[in-house]
Amino acid sequence: MADINSPVEIGVTTGPIRGSRKVHVGARTGSGIRVAMREIDLEGGEPSVRVYDTSGPYTDPNATIDINAGLPQLRRDWIMARGDVEAYDGREVKPEDNGQLGPDRSGGVPQFPNAVKRPLRAKAGMNVSQMHYARRGIITPEMEYVAERENLGREIAADLIRDGESWGAEIPDVITPEFVRSEVARGRAIIPNNINHPESEPMAIGRNFLVKINANIGNSAVASNVAQEVDKMVWATRWGADTIMDLSTGRNIHDTREWIIRNSAVPVGTVPIYQALEKVGGIAEELTWEIFRDTLIEQAEQGVDYFTIHAGVRLPYIPLTAKRVTGIVSRGGSIMAKWCLAHHKESFLYEHFDEITEIMKAYDIAYSLGDGLRPGSIRDANDEAQFAELYTLGELTKRAWAQDVQVMIEGPGHVPMHKIKQNMEKQLEACGEAPFYTLGPLVTDIAPGYDHITSGIGAAQIGWYGTAMLCYVTPKEHLGLPDRDDVKVGVVTYKLAAHAADLAKGHPAAQVRDDALSKARFEFRWRDQFNLSLDPETAEQYHDQTLPAEGAKSAHFCSMCGPKFCSMKITQEVRDFAAKQNAATETFIAATEEEAEKGMAEMSAKFREVGNQLYVGAGDREHD
Amino acid sequence: MADINSPVEIGVTTGPIRGSRKVHVGARTGSGIRVAMREIDLEGGEPSVRVYDTSGPYTDPNATIDINAGLPQLRRDWIMARGDVEAYDGREVKPEDNGQLGPDRSGGVPQFPNAVKRPLRAKAGMNVSQMHYARRGIITPEMEYVAERENLGREIAADLIRDGESWGAEIPDVITPEFVRSEVARGRAIIPNNINHPESEPMAIGRNFLVKINANIGNSAVASNVAQEVDKMVWATRWGADTIMDLSTGRNIHDTREWIIRNSAVPVGTVPIYQALEKVGGIAEELTWEIFRDTLIEQAEQGVDYFTIHAGVRLPYIPLTAKRVTGIVSRGGSIMAKWCLAHHKESFLYEHFDEITEIMKAYDIAYSLGDGLRPGSIRDANDEAQFAELYTLGELTKRAWAQDVQVMIEGPGHVPMHKIKQNMEKQLEACGEAPFYTLGPLVTDIAPGYDHITSGIGAAQIGWYGTAMLCYVTPKEHLGLPDRDDVKVGVVTYKLAAHAADLAKGHPAAQVRDDALSKARFEFRWRDQFNLSLDPETAEQYHDQTLPAEGAKSAHFCSMCGPKFCSMKITQEVRDFAAKQNAATETFIAATEEEAEKGMAEMSAKFREVGNQLYVGAGDREHD
Repeated sequence: MADINSPVEIGVTTGPIRGSRKVHVGARTGSGIRVAMREIDLEGGEPSVRVYDTSGPYTDPNATIDINAGLPQLRRDWIMARGDVEAYDGREVKPEDNGQLGPDRSGGVPQFPNAVKRPLRAKAGMNVSQMHYARRGIITPEMEYVAERENLGREIAADLIRDGESWGAEIPDVITPEFVRSEVARGRAIIPNNINHPESEPMAIGRNFLVKINANIGNSAVASNVAQEVDKMVWATRWGADTIMDLSTGRNIHDTREWIIRNSAVPVGTVPIYQALEKVGGIAEELTWEIFRDTLIEQAEQGVDYFTIHAGVRLPYIPLTAKRVTGIVSRGGSIMAKWCLAHHKESFLYEHFDEITEIMKAYDIAYSLGDGLRPGSIRDANDEAQFAELYTLGELTKRAWAQDVQVMIEGPGHVPMHKIKQNMEKQLEACGEAPFYTLGPLVTDIAPGYDHITSGIGAAQIGWYGTAMLCYVTPKEHLGLPDRDDVKVGVVTYKLAAHAADLAKGHPAAQVRDDALSKARFEFRWRDQFNLSLDPETAEQYHDQTLPAEGAKSAHFCSMCGPKFCSMKITQEVRDFAAKQNAATETFIAATEEEAEKGMAEMSAKFREVGNQLYVGAGDREHD
Repeated sequence: MADINSPVEIGVTTGPIRGSRKVHVGARTGSGIRVAMREIDLEGGEPSVRVYDTSGPYTDPNATIDINAGLPQLRRDWIMARGDVEAYDGREVKPEDNGQLGPDRSGGVPQFPNAVKRPLRAKAGMNVSQMHYARRGIITPEMEYVAERENLGREIAADLIRDGESWGAEIPDVITPEFVRSEVARGRAIIPNNINHPESEPMAIGRNFLVKINANIGNSAVASNVAQEVDKMVWATRWGADTIMDLSTGRNIHDTREWIIRNSAVPVGTVPIYQALEKVGGIAEELTWEIFRDTLIEQAEQGVDYFTIHAGVRLPYIPLTAKRVTGIVSRGGSIMAKWCLAHHKESFLYEHFDEITEIMKAYDIAYSLGDGLRPGSIRDANDEAQFAELYTLGELTKRAWAQDVQVMIEGPGHVPMHKIKQNMEKQLEACGEAPFYTLGPLVTDIAPGYDHITSGIGAAQIGWYGTAMLCYVTPKEHLGLPDRDDVKVGVVTYKLAAHAADLAKGHPAAQVRDDALSKARFEFRWRDQFNLSLDPETAEQYHDQTLPAEGAKSAHFCSMCGPKFCSMKITQEVRDFAAKQNAATETFIAATEEEAEKGMAEMSAKFREVGNQLYVGAGDREHD
């Protein structure tokens, strides 16, 4: 790892994840598309394990990283080749785009040197959404990329028995580009990739693909700066964030976002109402459709891949929240609630929804329909306000689909375990299987400081039930702004939750990594165990706190049992014995007690012969 | 908090948990029994919240703590009053009890100054188990204590609607001593309390009570010492461990255990085979029934409350593990497997099971029937070996119950989410609803360093399905020995998982604390939010990392949104408005759009009247 410092002092972490190599796998269609993956090489002749890689060029030692220039435009040629876009003079950046209405409390952010002046949009009458292509039967390079990426390791796992409970998901043995197309066409998956963010590597969010995770970053009015946010973005994707949301508030929102998008290899989402609110000095009542619309164009031109739009917070639903323990906890939701109440009018987002959709399709921006009325406490889960909004989101989904615009649906929040499944079921029903994208949910309110865990529990479950993307929660949730360490803990927690969901759904190749790691553990290949883990650095560090010597990494024991006492070692003896006594072993199982009795003295003697030479070793153990 | 140092330099953490008071609540039976609880006082006239308290006298500022003397003997009089026990000259401590067979690598451990020389046991022909009393219709003081303890807060919650999915558990609105008796009588709950551990505060483990958690501590051959282990015990119970298991291996096992038991206010469990193995120099083949039996007596006299006995690892099952990815991962299981193979005989634990039960009933020790063949990897979950053993544990349960001895059943381990429920269902069926006590389960193998989380996900689910006690896993699992910080993280993670299970099962009073915390959060009562949390210190520390000033704790905003932008604040405005416009609000909901339209101008004016004075504040927020 090395820190590369740009002239504006933005340092990010680069270099391979320890024990891993970046590989580029050619799509089996022969189209020449090369998909970035990560390969973990193992010791002892074990086959290497290929894993999904969200880290972009930052982990490629052959890539030149220049934060001031941005990433290479992987998708530019694909976009241009379709012949349905035009470059045009983009909207001028205005002072209020960066919140220059009052004293700047967040510190100045320089303009990105390489900002796009002539963005792309669909030619008049054209629709450049992946859904539009899909519905016309076109398999795009983006779909091919996704297919290859998702297929990861399925050949290795081909001889494994499919196992799992998918709750109605239809996960194929092999993902073909045609399968990706069909899922996008019917709205069951989205590929969020704005034509003005050609730096991103295509990925899919959908119930029949691997479960994805999102990491939130962003300035706030009281803390944070652009260098930290770009660093967090690279850091979050290094550990596995599939998308990033830039939730900046306060000042310099426009410029911060430009730095993030130009350097992001994953799709970037935003909540445009945040910036719109800054433009009216934070006074929700003064928001207008015109200001909001202008903000959408501004962000569309920069390349935002999906917009959270809280168009389901309708005027009649707002009083339904009055008796809640925690009212409205969504920022976007509360802004719109305030606007609706102040004007006593229906939400302008709802009223102008089809116009918003017109903008989305000109840039291929996906909707993330916001759940502005989601519960903020266990008490408020699954209430009337929440589900009233959900059904409206279903109505809006169909309106967006009518224009071939991609949609996912945001979900809660705070939900006790027994009410989680209902959320998934209602969402599938109300929203026609559009991908669900949930925040946790947290399964209890009593553990601030540990809400990555309270929410990870809910996230694993709802991911299993069918949620396509899980929005991470960090240990600082409810308490403060996450720092770099919190971002990593949040991402790793959500990766493990998403993976647990994949396992339980029965994704064909999900278990390959578990098996490889468990085998390494059993065989005392400590380095392999670290390298196969979601966070090799922490795993090794924890090991070394008790047994720091380098020799301990090849030792056939660990600190929990010490060298004399090891269940893993004993099992190896059982296995060796079983192998050497194969025929006899069979009789173990089949034999009646009388028959078994008969062979005992003989077998006992044989075991002593093998066993007396046993390595008096010990190893990694579990409790008792 | 202060550290009290004993002459042998054992320091433990004492003093109240911040924001809490120790209270002693008289049992409503009027028997004079006083139950220790913790009360959290709140600001702003909110009623205080009473929570379950496992911390013992250490958090009582009025208690005198002397580690060299041990805790007061709360239960001594109850035990003596029954007239069925006798004191006798205990077994002499032998050098091999402390492993003095070779060089001492763990450092010397002094003898506990106040070690019991004349332990108690049942008089000849008597049975002193709680199950025996229960079956004879006797309500013991222990049962009364448990009833009061479990009832905690149920009156406050009496007007709440029962909510939850209990999967067949039968949780009453109010726990009576008679209910406790009936649950113990039918084997559905246990009260582990050896008559030689009168220092412990009675607690119940059962599906119809609050979900409990266990913390493992103990020396290993390569690390740790007695002062650390006593400190960890006090520390773990401070944060909520309901029982402790002393899993010491290596040297000084006897003396270490004496220090722990004499100072523990919670039941202490052990795995006696560990110590027995040390007595034969670590060579499993040399174990004998006589050595094992002697070890049981040794530990029974010291006061161990429950024994893990791996009597289900039968000879015919061992070859079933040979093709597993991770074979046998239980230490106890692998010791017994090795013994069985070496001798080619059925397990002496299985053969002598009824004799073991004779010992158990003379001291009221509960069985924790060990799952020596539990899966150690996702691949091995729910296999033939595992379930063969489980059904044997069911058979042994009935044999123990035939002698009125209390039983719980240990469970896995590593299990993907879709296979968790089957574990619970089979356990209930095979073991006649004896309490289940599971280790996690971990829902994926790929996150060493985060296995408190991978297992917390499984623990919350299996707790919801009916597991009565969850054995914690720390972040160091599979990697090293947990230190004090790891113990706390493990305990808090498991407390939140157990609480999430209680919520989902619909325990009547479980939600009181969630509601109080959420209300505090909504009302910006930061100190109340910290104090109500499972770990007030961490919550406050995280908050202060971004906003350290004392004033920020009464500020109506947090660092995530800053002072200008706050959904909670806006909700308060919505609520104020709704309250003031009550009649009009109703029309919101009922009104057709046309009707609503009509009143809009008027209501808008009213809101502006209220709203123009709005505090431009901000607060604790969630994502978007």
